[in-house]
Amino acid sequence: MEFTPEESETLLRILQWRRDVRHFRRDPVDETLLERLRQTMERAPSVGNARPWRVIRVEDQALRAEVRTNFQRCNHKAAQLYAADRRAEYLALKLAGLEAAPVQLAVFTVMDPEAGHGLGRQTLPETLRQSTAMAIYTLWLAARAENLGLGMVSILEPGEIEALLKVPVGWEFAAYLCLGHPEFMDDTPLLHRAGWQENSTTEWQRR
Amino acid sequence: MEFTPEESETLLRILQWRRDVRHFRRDPVDETLLERLRQTMERAPSVGNARPWRVIRVEDQALRAEVRTNFQRCNHKAAQLYAADRRAEYLALKLAGLEAAPVQLAVFTVMDPEAGHGLGRQTLPETLRQSTAMAIYTLWLAARAENLGLGMVSILEPGEIEALLKVPVGWEFAAYLCLGHPEFMDDTPLLHRAGWQENSTTEWQRR
Repeated sequence: MEFTPEESETLLRILQWRRDVRHFRRDPVDETLLERLRQTMERAPSVGNARPWRVIRVEDQALRAEVRTNFQRCNHKAAQLYAADRRAEYLALKLAGLEAAPVQLAVFTVMDPEAGHGLGRQTLPETLRQSTAMAIYTLWLAARAENLGLGMVSILEPGEIEALLKVPVGWEFAAYLCLGHPEFMDDTPLLHRAGWQENSTTEWQRR
Repeated sequence: MEFTPEESETLLRILQWRRDVRHFRRDPVDETLLERLRQTMERAPSVGNARPWRVIRVEDQALRAEVRTNFQRCNHKAAQLYAADRRAEYLALKLAGLEAAPVQLAVFTVMDPEAGHGLGRQTLPETLRQSTAMAIYTLWLAARAENLGLGMVSILEPGEIEALLKVPVGWEFAAYLCLGHPEFMDDTPLLHRAGWQENSTTEWQRR
């Protein structure tokens, strides 16, 4: 399988137009499309082919309300870290789309999966978490290519989310994902537009 | 920017044909192409737009030899975890392409970056490592779309690699990447083909 320059360019545009979406329309995501996204997520890389990610689709309105409350509490606490000016700026940012996103997924990592038989993670158990991060990103890109938006919410207390969703022992919270039709498309991070943190470049050092 | 079903299908094929490559040709990667990949890596998502990944391109032959030695030691040690039959199977697997890959990159995470001003990582400092994992995956996909292969080596002792490359305080080792022209293309994980760990599916639970 050889890819053409046009196909490489398509990937580039998908990468460029993938954003952390926090503004969602409330209309549902087609279930066939959602199942296709679930299948695409399976194509993520994983250490030892262990596929240590676990996904809970949160539909219960009471559970969703608890997640929102948890976010508000964590976000309020995070705001206290900043001096007054910066705090006002922080609080003006919209950092999650929890109130409107029609699909909400809690993602976890199994830190001692049987699959993979331990391969590739003896010196770096962290590789399991890396696998989950890449699975989330796989879903993110696939959603964007289907003209959906995804937002990754990390301003939550991990232990409380694990307890709320009554996950099995050994599941570690990774992120809470909002998924749906975005209110607008953009090719520039919101935090760059808002002036919170401008885009920067990463030079590669040499040794 | 709306993507067509054909473009979504292109992404799917890139995801499907991305493999952890351990068999490389020795011919160099064009520097213009490499610079394009570096720029594409900048499009990765990151918490607070902090871009906490750091990359060192390892060219010195003595350093590369040290990395290979480190891998061999860690790999030998990992093999001891298995009973005799399984150990023979493990040792027959080719788990890295360190001897031939023309481009080798050590990737790290800055665990307290100034960029982003702490946003999004107060309850989950792990988000910084997730950002680095996604940056690695961005490079991986971009390389595949340019018909290169990338292999992610995690069977290394993180502290020793940090010391070997004399990285600044606060840089945490994430992975060592081999990059180059692959000897062959495949759409199925080597560990699945070898029978070590077959592909499995991840059902989404509901709450």
